[in-house]
Amino acid sequence: MSERPNTPLLDQVRDPSDLKRLTDAQLRQVADELRAETISAVSETGGHLGAGLGVVELTVALHALWNAPRDRIIWDVSHQTYPHKILTGRRDRIRTIRQKDGLSGFTKRAESPFDAFGAAHSSTSISAALGFAVARDLGGAPEHGIGDAIAVIGDGAMSAGMAFEAMNNAGSLGKRMIVILNDNEMSIAPPVGALSNYLSRLYAGDPFQEFKAAAKGAVSLLPPPFQQGAKRAKEMLKGMTVGGTLFEELGFSYVGPIDGHDFNQLLPVLRTVKARATGPVLIHIVTKKGKGYAPAEKARDGGHATAKFDVVSGEQKKAPSNAPSYTSVFGKELVRLAAEDPRICAVTAAMPDGTGLNLMVERYPSRTFDVGIAEQHGVTFSAGLAAGGLKPFCAMYSTFLQRGYDQVVHDVAIQRLPVRFAIDRAGLVGADGATHAGSFDTAYLSNLPGFVVMAAADEAELMHMVATAAAHDDGPIAFRYPRGEGSGVEMPEKGEVLEIGKGRMIQQGARVAILSFGTRLSEVMTASESLRARGITPTVADVRFAKPLDRALILQLAADHEALITIEEGAVGGFGSHVAQLLSDEGVFDDGLKFRSMVLPDTFIDQASPADMYATAKLNAPDIEAKVLEVLGVAQVSQKKA
Amino acid sequence: MSERPNTPLLDQVRDPSDLKRLTDAQLRQVADELRAETISAVSETGGHLGAGLGVVELTVALHALWNAPRDRIIWDVSHQTYPHKILTGRRDRIRTIRQKDGLSGFTKRAESPFDAFGAAHSSTSISAALGFAVARDLGGAPEHGIGDAIAVIGDGAMSAGMAFEAMNNAGSLGKRMIVILNDNEMSIAPPVGALSNYLSRLYAGDPFQEFKAAAKGAVSLLPPPFQQGAKRAKEMLKGMTVGGTLFEELGFSYVGPIDGHDFNQLLPVLRTVKARATGPVLIHIVTKKGKGYAPAEKARDGGHATAKFDVVSGEQKKAPSNAPSYTSVFGKELVRLAAEDPRICAVTAAMPDGTGLNLMVERYPSRTFDVGIAEQHGVTFSAGLAAGGLKPFCAMYSTFLQRGYDQVVHDVAIQRLPVRFAIDRAGLVGADGATHAGSFDTAYLSNLPGFVVMAAADEAELMHMVATAAAHDDGPIAFRYPRGEGSGVEMPEKGEVLEIGKGRMIQQGARVAILSFGTRLSEVMTASESLRARGITPTVADVRFAKPLDRALILQLAADHEALITIEEGAVGGFGSHVAQLLSDEGVFDDGLKFRSMVLPDTFIDQASPADMYATAKLNAPDIEAKVLEVLGVAQVSQKKA
Repeated sequence: MSERPNTPLLDQVRDPSDLKRLTDAQLRQVADELRAETISAVSETGGHLGAGLGVVELTVALHALWNAPRDRIIWDVSHQTYPHKILTGRRDRIRTIRQKDGLSGFTKRAESPFDAFGAAHSSTSISAALGFAVARDLGGAPEHGIGDAIAVIGDGAMSAGMAFEAMNNAGSLGKRMIVILNDNEMSIAPPVGALSNYLSRLYAGDPFQEFKAAAKGAVSLLPPPFQQGAKRAKEMLKGMTVGGTLFEELGFSYVGPIDGHDFNQLLPVLRTVKARATGPVLIHIVTKKGKGYAPAEKARDGGHATAKFDVVSGEQKKAPSNAPSYTSVFGKELVRLAAEDPRICAVTAAMPDGTGLNLMVERYPSRTFDVGIAEQHGVTFSAGLAAGGLKPFCAMYSTFLQRGYDQVVHDVAIQRLPVRFAIDRAGLVGADGATHAGSFDTAYLSNLPGFVVMAAADEAELMHMVATAAAHDDGPIAFRYPRGEGSGVEMPEKGEVLEIGKGRMIQQGARVAILSFGTRLSEVMTASESLRARGITPTVADVRFAKPLDRALILQLAADHEALITIEEGAVGGFGSHVAQLLSDEGVFDDGLKFRSMVLPDTFIDQASPADMYATAKLNAPDIEAKVLEVLGVAQVSQKKA
Repeated sequence: MSERPNTPLLDQVRDPSDLKRLTDAQLRQVADELRAETISAVSETGGHLGAGLGVVELTVALHALWNAPRDRIIWDVSHQTYPHKILTGRRDRIRTIRQKDGLSGFTKRAESPFDAFGAAHSSTSISAALGFAVARDLGGAPEHGIGDAIAVIGDGAMSAGMAFEAMNNAGSLGKRMIVILNDNEMSIAPPVGALSNYLSRLYAGDPFQEFKAAAKGAVSLLPPPFQQGAKRAKEMLKGMTVGGTLFEELGFSYVGPIDGHDFNQLLPVLRTVKARATGPVLIHIVTKKGKGYAPAEKARDGGHATAKFDVVSGEQKKAPSNAPSYTSVFGKELVRLAAEDPRICAVTAAMPDGTGLNLMVERYPSRTFDVGIAEQHGVTFSAGLAAGGLKPFCAMYSTFLQRGYDQVVHDVAIQRLPVRFAIDRAGLVGADGATHAGSFDTAYLSNLPGFVVMAAADEAELMHMVATAAAHDDGPIAFRYPRGEGSGVEMPEKGEVLEIGKGRMIQQGARVAILSFGTRLSEVMTASESLRARGITPTVADVRFAKPLDRALILQLAADHEALITIEEGAVGGFGSHVAQLLSDEGVFDDGLKFRSMVLPDTFIDQASPADMYATAKLNAPDIEAKVLEVLGVAQVSQKKA
């Protein structure tokens, strides 16, 4: 463990109210100590670092000037809230962050009243803030009331459609609310799109110097509607602020851009807005991701997320990896196929690295499209590419594909367009917790007519599925795979095209057949080993396809066994439900079949290691073994049909 | 049938290529005849009228100047494409539109190569057009090639987030593509939001006159990058076009606004853009919904959709209604509850009339929020209202709620916020066809932890469910109900609060129990009457809740009967799948239970009457009767367990 930093002033801050008796100079010192404490904490735990360091000054300023929790501060995405958590009574637990039973890595209403609105997916904060602003004016929360509603949103998050929808609505309703656009030219990857270029132009030419002087001299010299001065003051302002027309056209007053690390700009601007705002205001601050910690500042991603690290050297303490990650297996196989077929192209929504498409960006930049945080557009854009004769791979995390669900239904499935969905982070994901779990994709895709839905049992299977998707031109196809490393299986030279709707037998046994969809297969085999010691050898099949089902295989196994168990890393409604529908349609239950479907439980599971989360979900080897014993009558079934 | 209009010139247009030999004056005449033919056709069939009349000139101009289907014309929403269909070889079938086996009321790729991209939900066209533009440049569709990609999108649709996402991406990629913003100040309802105000300002002060003069004189006098003239020409332009900064900031060249009904403006502008565009261009045309047909022009909704009507008087020939619509029952009960509880408020995404919230708008305008075509924001805004202590009812069609799915998961369910989802148009919807079917909501909501999911069996039940939702403060709750009229049951004075997770027995019978979720209950009862004649009286229960399930009721019925049948107006993965999960978990299948789950089939069902669609889906009374007979062994089961 590194030595803890010296934080004499921060030690006196138990609560944001303690900030109120400090001078501006002391706030500067608190910010410095808070930054050191944040670095120290993350060095011990790992987690999101760069974003938090970028908003240390903003966090201190907001809590010094406003009165949370009565004032609702809503942090977009909220991986930047480690400093906020430290200031709001959670410093003692900050070194438990993202761990089982520890603090969440994101804001969470159940964790603290200072977390006004939970987040983890981006671009929700303005909508939520508008909800609070309206609730305030309609007398919601009468016990304590609602003060200001403040959304803090990054420039990357601002590019998402729902942020625009919220601005459009808020600008029209005209209620007092504050949006702080934290512009660090960096979401996770460098942001893309026209809005990003626009924001860059807003602070081209270093306008900070002039503004700093003005802000020091007269805080009233702020853009309309804040200025109370004469025409001359307005004209000064014109030179001082560069634009913001786009936001003004949407009905917001625009203030900025200002340096978000300079209290001499930040405090007077925020004080003036607090005192004078009557309608929606957007304050454009410019910050640096990873600010104040050289290794993060220098990193390409601004020190976005990190393993535990040494504070002095910045060196990360990663466990050595044994097998390639699923993400990289996907990326490499796609690049290989793209070399053979010039029609293959790829789409990511602001996650080139996270999805492994960085490899495509390197090799085939003109065929790889980062559409920004814009899953809705990304899916329909992919549909357009497919309608135009290309072979698009739309690579998204399971949880983020939810953002494009209507587009999957309406633009892809109904039109039967051959978009290939590479669904990363399927299943439980570990430290990111419930908000990032990929629990629902099998259910919400498998009931779409014409869809093919696959899950990879291991990293070699993933290679086959990438190849299968590339070869499949008759409608949409999806393949899901988990976060993290593969299981170290032998890898083929290249992926082979699988027959659609055909599973594979893994092991022939007796009495019970286990149908596995996805990477639980290794747990099934572990359970099988253990069962063998008890004299039970289950039949095991990797079904590969939730849709279309391998009807012949499933019905044969049902006929040949006393019991059938399905297992998947997804919620009810998916693979197991489709099997149940098949079995009931075919009358298999009529004369009795011991059927069990192992799915994710009906709870949102908090962060922990993936293995711990699957233990909670009862989908690990011991749970499978227990299920087999139960269904074969070694354990008692609680209720039976009379 | 009205007398058909006289259309001598239109009669010679078999194909868009026939337009190319006509003079501009003749195009004007074709447009007039096309308008008359459109009015005549819709008067016989009913359907969408106003939007098509608004784009008659644009349709003629696009097909006269471009070469579809090589050039891809993508109509947003596409209910405005009746004139397009008439011009592209489907005039002979235009009077079958929206009918079983007839033309779709929307564009459909399977129907015609001139329908480059199917639509029905809004705001997808720019994404699709960008896909085609990219595919063109990457050599997609090598057999015929791809020419221009042209999106035609309304001002209401432009307010949706995904349109912004697409503009943001397209403006950044810089590829040649054309977006025609068809600004009629009218989506279905008058549009709302700051963008709408912005567009209004763009053509405040009647700039058409000046532009018309300019456009006649010199087509080169167009905004950058089209003008080739001198500085003076640029300055003329500055006076001529009012702004468009917002679009220019997003990387588009902006042309307009121009009068979309005036060929003297439309043709030269389109010709110039076609000749000179190098990157993305937005052409802003202003049109009138219902243009050229007085009854439509005068209607509040611009003659959006209509029953069959008399062309001379404009009078609609609606069948007399027998029972109140579900939509109005919801609206009235909500108003009644809102009178009792000032915290009740309501959110719609551009559908105040369609969802029945027009009644709330009248009585409680300050508590009713039309957020525009912005389901993502609408859901999270509702979450914010709930977090702020209000009781929001978020009223959306099932198919459109898909747009807000991630927000339902991430902002509502994970935070367990008591947002009330009023899900209209659940199940099959008739003439609007597959794109509007509400097939998936039960599946995609019922696997979310903490959700309550109800379906109303009739309009009285709907009243109870509105009251139940208002009273339910412990997490999210949804109730679904179909399009159209209720079944005419006796109505209570007010809704009663139902016990969560408790179904109701409808009829005690023997051998087979039918569990109904939703309005199939009336078909179940019809089937029951018919079965009674054969000596079979099924037990019937209205389960009311897909989540939480009435476990006691279901397990008891399973224990007491030889066979159990579930029925719902939804796809697999929903109610029936949850029942199957319960039964398998409890070991009910172990010793045999004849279980069948009647769900929507694995196909997208084309437009027809709802009854016809349910016949196709095999969810009508005869199908239920047949299922009962089959499961009881009167009919043979094709495959049985060996």
